[in-house]
Amino acid sequence: MVRRASAAIAGIGETRYSTPGAPDAPSETRLACEAIRAAAADAGLGMADIDGLASFANSALDPSLLQIELGMPALHFSSMVWGGRGGGACGALAHAAMAVQTRQARCVAVFRSLSQTRTRRYGDFFAERMHVNFTAPFGLVSPAQMNALVVQRYLHEYGLPADAGAEIALLCRDNAQFNPRAQTYGRPKTLADYQASPMLAAPLRMMDCCLQSDGACAVLVTSVERARDLRRRPVRIAAAAQGSGPGWGSGAMGSYNMPAADFASGNARQLGQRLFDMAGLVPADVDVAQIYDHFTGMALMSLEDFGFCERGAAPAFAASGALRHGSGRLPINTAGGSLGEAYVHGMNLIAEAVRQLRGDSTRQVVDAEVSFVCSGAGVAPTSAALLCVRR
Amino acid sequence: MVRRASAAIAGIGETRYSTPGAPDAPSETRLACEAIRAAAADAGLGMADIDGLASFANSALDPSLLQIELGMPALHFSSMVWGGRGGGACGALAHAAMAVQTRQARCVAVFRSLSQTRTRRYGDFFAERMHVNFTAPFGLVSPAQMNALVVQRYLHEYGLPADAGAEIALLCRDNAQFNPRAQTYGRPKTLADYQASPMLAAPLRMMDCCLQSDGACAVLVTSVERARDLRRRPVRIAAAAQGSGPGWGSGAMGSYNMPAADFASGNARQLGQRLFDMAGLVPADVDVAQIYDHFTGMALMSLEDFGFCERGAAPAFAASGALRHGSGRLPINTAGGSLGEAYVHGMNLIAEAVRQLRGDSTRQVVDAEVSFVCSGAGVAPTSAALLCVRR
Repeated sequence: MVRRASAAIAGIGETRYSTPGAPDAPSETRLACEAIRAAAADAGLGMADIDGLASFANSALDPSLLQIELGMPALHFSSMVWGGRGGGACGALAHAAMAVQTRQARCVAVFRSLSQTRTRRYGDFFAERMHVNFTAPFGLVSPAQMNALVVQRYLHEYGLPADAGAEIALLCRDNAQFNPRAQTYGRPKTLADYQASPMLAAPLRMMDCCLQSDGACAVLVTSVERARDLRRRPVRIAAAAQGSGPGWGSGAMGSYNMPAADFASGNARQLGQRLFDMAGLVPADVDVAQIYDHFTGMALMSLEDFGFCERGAAPAFAASGALRHGSGRLPINTAGGSLGEAYVHGMNLIAEAVRQLRGDSTRQVVDAEVSFVCSGAGVAPTSAALLCVRR
Repeated sequence: MVRRASAAIAGIGETRYSTPGAPDAPSETRLACEAIRAAAADAGLGMADIDGLASFANSALDPSLLQIELGMPALHFSSMVWGGRGGGACGALAHAAMAVQTRQARCVAVFRSLSQTRTRRYGDFFAERMHVNFTAPFGLVSPAQMNALVVQRYLHEYGLPADAGAEIALLCRDNAQFNPRAQTYGRPKTLADYQASPMLAAPLRMMDCCLQSDGACAVLVTSVERARDLRRRPVRIAAAAQGSGPGWGSGAMGSYNMPAADFASGNARQLGQRLFDMAGLVPADVDVAQIYDHFTGMALMSLEDFGFCERGAAPAFAASGALRHGSGRLPINTAGGSLGEAYVHGMNLIAEAVRQLRGDSTRQVVDAEVSFVCSGAGVAPTSAALLCVRR
């Protein structure tokens, strides 16, 4: 079905995901090592088998320090996706696949570790880095505010209601109730809860915004041939790519003055076409999708950008129940996503995409063969991946 | 001669290199754009032909902002070598080659832009990033100090004189006198000047330490097939790789407690073997070398690490005149290097390696077919590359 797939995911590993603030919260180094060791154990590999490290979103960690902490005898590849922050998880996966395909590395650990207890993530308004220097003086400083403006325009352009994102928030929360790893496990929410949720930056209510988390998630990328000999069923990377269209970027959240046709995550639309072409697949081939859900409205736009429905049609598509587990259409965020499971910049979405293809998700889609994952919309460059198994 | 080379350097571009401190010093963004545009002009390419950006050493720039500034319609690959700082230039070249080989990108601009006037480069002693938190309280804060300790041990282990690095300092300065782009052009130095040079951190005198620079340098990496159709003779990337051995890293300058056999840049020795194997070459095949020269003593160790001479033999090898232009042995740093031309974290060494293979260096090695370049010793991971032309 898939044209070529010269790299595979052989292991996944996660720490516990927890709400920031615990006085004994571990460091990002410790969380990263725990997730990478768990992924190695999952694959049946040791530290001598891993010779590459890839991360994204400006991780503050140092690969050589991690190498020592982990006891890796050699490091042959270390890459940080440049720019794009939450848009980078599938980009890091793409970098790892490139390193494996070109034999620069045998096995690359791709991961994201976040301790919101121990580090500040926002507020690095560095002179040459971000256009926010021009907007921060007017009070536009948080990702929720920045994305709210994009979502406002989306709702306006297509005549959509302010609560268009409610179904995304509720289905993620619902899926999380089946997943004991999820931060919101055991705390279901109803539409009434959504409607009562505080408005943070109109139209985004608190329930439209992702969780805050301490935790780490890692996947191991190696060659398809090698993965075949390991403990778990290999999950092939049919395609993984980064992308950014013209004039979109500017290093932070969206270009508010884009033409209507492209205003939202127009960069993702180009990326999606390239990604599906690389894999020799079309959106209708996707059995289960993990859609980056930092904010519900942005997840709706991603569904459109990647061709799962027409422009402006995502809220109706969602309202039809098509995104729910068991719908037979396009179940999304089956572990709960960033809204229900944890927010580690979408790395956990890749882990769940893998579980679906192994058949061990807590909301398993029967006989899933093609998993789609995308990283954050509204940042540039963003990234996406198509994973598959052969049955 | 070379087994395979699926990527090539099609263009090089540089800004003027200048001593920091000018009141009108341009920003790193502006310098980067100038160098990338110059590289595109050199190759005969436009901005629509470039779809990837790669840099290293924690560049503070944002790729999406650069994309807009440059007018690139699409960005398909953006990578920052992770860790290793001055060890990263050839690593960024390797990342670009991977992206081209795997068709993630058609043409990647690899660059480094530094404005020491406008940004501070040192002093980011971030909690989880560097082991310097343990040494800074004792006054060990600058790269010169950190490298001085490594060089001290090198001199001690092999019974070498304190001025072992003098020949490196003088030959780089001498080569720079032929290169009008060099910051030290028109200011030759003698051995007496070296001996009178202030001792900064024993055994490193000021003349053992690289220049400080404002400037940027870029090279364009594309496929060999594509490069053949462009303006300049394609320079093939026979091999480019990153590497870090066991226990070496720790995110800053060297592990002072390594076993004697490996204490210096032991990581580079493994890297060198892998690099030459990848290319199907041996050190004796190299016609001209660009050896990272942040500090003279570290450049001596690099010559040994990469197999150009035995352990402890580099000072005698240098003193024999073997590294001088016209020696017929191993001419190095023919544009002046970091000691004589400019310090942009070794990116200019790659540009000079290319010029040598095109035949237009200001200290041309006759009929050079294989150029070696290495990035910084004493950091991890470091990197190196072998470039070649077919005549």
